[in-house]
Amino acid sequence: MALIVQKFGGTSVASTDRIKNVARRVARWKAQGNDVIVVPSAMSGETNRLIGLAREISAEPDPRELDVIASTGEQVTIALLAMAMHEEGLKAKSYTGAQVRVLTDSTFTKARILQIDDEKIRKDLAEGNVVVVAGFQGADENGNITTLGRGGSDTSAVALAAALKADECQIYTDVDGVYTTDPRVVPEARKLDTITFEEMLEMASLGSKVLQIRSVEFAGKYKVKLRVLSSFDDEGEGTLITVEEEKKMEQPIISGIAFNRDEAKLTVLGVPDRPGIAYQILGPIAEANIDVDMIIQNVGHDGTTDFSFTVNRGDYTKALGVLETVKTKLDARGVVGDNKTCKVSAVGVGMRSHPGVASQMFSALASESINIQMISTSEIKISVVIEEKYLELAVRVLHKAFGLDKAD
Amino acid sequence: MALIVQKFGGTSVASTDRIKNVARRVARWKAQGNDVIVVPSAMSGETNRLIGLAREISAEPDPRELDVIASTGEQVTIALLAMAMHEEGLKAKSYTGAQVRVLTDSTFTKARILQIDDEKIRKDLAEGNVVVVAGFQGADENGNITTLGRGGSDTSAVALAAALKADECQIYTDVDGVYTTDPRVVPEARKLDTITFEEMLEMASLGSKVLQIRSVEFAGKYKVKLRVLSSFDDEGEGTLITVEEEKKMEQPIISGIAFNRDEAKLTVLGVPDRPGIAYQILGPIAEANIDVDMIIQNVGHDGTTDFSFTVNRGDYTKALGVLETVKTKLDARGVVGDNKTCKVSAVGVGMRSHPGVASQMFSALASESINIQMISTSEIKISVVIEEKYLELAVRVLHKAFGLDKAD
Repeated sequence: MALIVQKFGGTSVASTDRIKNVARRVARWKAQGNDVIVVPSAMSGETNRLIGLAREISAEPDPRELDVIASTGEQVTIALLAMAMHEEGLKAKSYTGAQVRVLTDSTFTKARILQIDDEKIRKDLAEGNVVVVAGFQGADENGNITTLGRGGSDTSAVALAAALKADECQIYTDVDGVYTTDPRVVPEARKLDTITFEEMLEMASLGSKVLQIRSVEFAGKYKVKLRVLSSFDDEGEGTLITVEEEKKMEQPIISGIAFNRDEAKLTVLGVPDRPGIAYQILGPIAEANIDVDMIIQNVGHDGTTDFSFTVNRGDYTKALGVLETVKTKLDARGVVGDNKTCKVSAVGVGMRSHPGVASQMFSALASESINIQMISTSEIKISVVIEEKYLELAVRVLHKAFGLDKAD
Repeated sequence: MALIVQKFGGTSVASTDRIKNVARRVARWKAQGNDVIVVPSAMSGETNRLIGLAREISAEPDPRELDVIASTGEQVTIALLAMAMHEEGLKAKSYTGAQVRVLTDSTFTKARILQIDDEKIRKDLAEGNVVVVAGFQGADENGNITTLGRGGSDTSAVALAAALKADECQIYTDVDGVYTTDPRVVPEARKLDTITFEEMLEMASLGSKVLQIRSVEFAGKYKVKLRVLSSFDDEGEGTLITVEEEKKMEQPIISGIAFNRDEAKLTVLGVPDRPGIAYQILGPIAEANIDVDMIIQNVGHDGTTDFSFTVNRGDYTKALGVLETVKTKLDARGVVGDNKTCKVSAVGVGMRSHPGVASQMFSALASESINIQMISTSEIKISVVIEEKYLELAVRVLHKAFGLDKAD
């Protein structure tokens, strides 16, 4: 008998019919002798509807009150799911985050989970209940309702799995697993049976939207066995996210090709090459609430250097404006930018033990005459910024070059 | 400086624009130096929508889970109201029933309030906040979410006013007060400046839908000054519901004419006139979940008697079926019924000290040749059952006969 945490996203509970489907699926797991904790999101569209109401009242709603309203989305789903399970003949009981309770800090709208009280859940499981816990929410030490931010239900599920030492945390989504790359770009893309936490983190941070990055970090930290599955397919085994040692011996060097289309590149030309310069450039960018992705600074010459970074395309104009001020302050030579760029990355723990992956990547891109504008590497990934028009071509050529279109 | 509890019903918070109006109204009360606690219902239609979702899942949803989902309606309103008050420059903070907490018993879907913890509210008021508390809901001693049943927000408001010893509990509705009778039937109907709790109770139980009957009982018991006001009219003083002694000296004998159109009458003919007979007839009726209104049993003759009662018209056929079984069991002579009847009542504490009110009423009805089928009296009301087609005529003639169309 195993204890399984199952998380269902908004599309999996988008209608009462889909909620009934989820209940039937849970009933099958229960019939196999498992204890099950179910963590649903709000019905898809519901969180946006609620936040829309708030915005009709106020352009900048109070975060505490925003959480009071936003948390009702999951509260509706847990009750409907419990009812649907009763219809399947299961014992089931629902809890809001505050009822559990899922203790968080007081950072409304993006709170962090501090602790989970497992007493009620353990008691209910022991009595044969399926326990349905609202994802995305908790309460702070004063009993104020908090939410974990968009995608927080994944984190709720993983945190519950960690707190209750569950045997597996299953994340049901509208895809049937993690792919070597986006199948819409490369039809030959294959579903991975396993992927390591580190690879998954890189994939997530590089734009693969299957799992919320915080939940992957959390699962890795607490050694929670995480599995991504489709809620619309009863057969598949999904993708298991493992610690590195558990991957099979004969593993590919590269596990996947990730990409991010919405990348814009900015460069401050000829800045004085002295300590503190990165902060003087990126400090004002951070103050303007612009997230920076890649940062590149090459060796300087003649006492100056060029400083480049990428931002989300939506922040491009704002970032340019900030840099104009910075330029004057630093007496830099100029500011240039390009918002027609994209980022393509090869990810795989295998590159740790296989030198030459970078050159293999660059050679593949060169064979198609794709010019590389920026390069950034980590221990298990290599990212390049290229012209946006080459995105699909680059992904396809890399997917093939690293043999990802062939079965393991 | 006074402490005011203001309850706003579903139509008063039906849209974000109306919610903004409520916030402006609260701001005016606050500007006059009052402390204000606001108790809203769910946006109109919302509770029905939520219960509709539950019914899509289950014909008989689990009551505990039904309360989890139903309570979200008010939770949305409190947050929106708090945000709207922030926009008016007020400090405001929302609480769900469970957060306050409003402690109830565990009778899900129709829980009763046991106790209200006033600590957080007092602290927030002292810090200058308007405190917004979700009506209709609470939590039991195990932290389960409960609701008080339809119209329970009135009860929440009165209970909060009692717990915090508020100076006044204002119930904002879509009418501007309590009328001598329904103005749609009698255009000359006048708004009452005051009415006693007992009269209000009789009016409510007789079909006047302004206030929920439990909240009036509660207010009477805890001596809460209750006022009914229109949320769409900024000027009116509404109707104050008082204890009897506070009513002015020169008061009318009758305060109002109430009526109930949906009345059906049933009679078991020739039942043995012996102890226990009422229970043998009404026991099976109660078991069939049929609410009985008036009950009449006259003196018997020849060892048998006729036993009559009225039920809501929707229960008429069901009640007839039950009585057929009862008839056989009791060896009664027959069962007759009529679902084309209605009830008209004259209500007033004045009749205590004025004999002859009944005969005055019967004479007025006789003058229009309206036949009285059943009569039932209490200390402060006289009700008659008549043919439904005479309803409007009876109400008008009584309204006039008791001088209700003239100013106090």
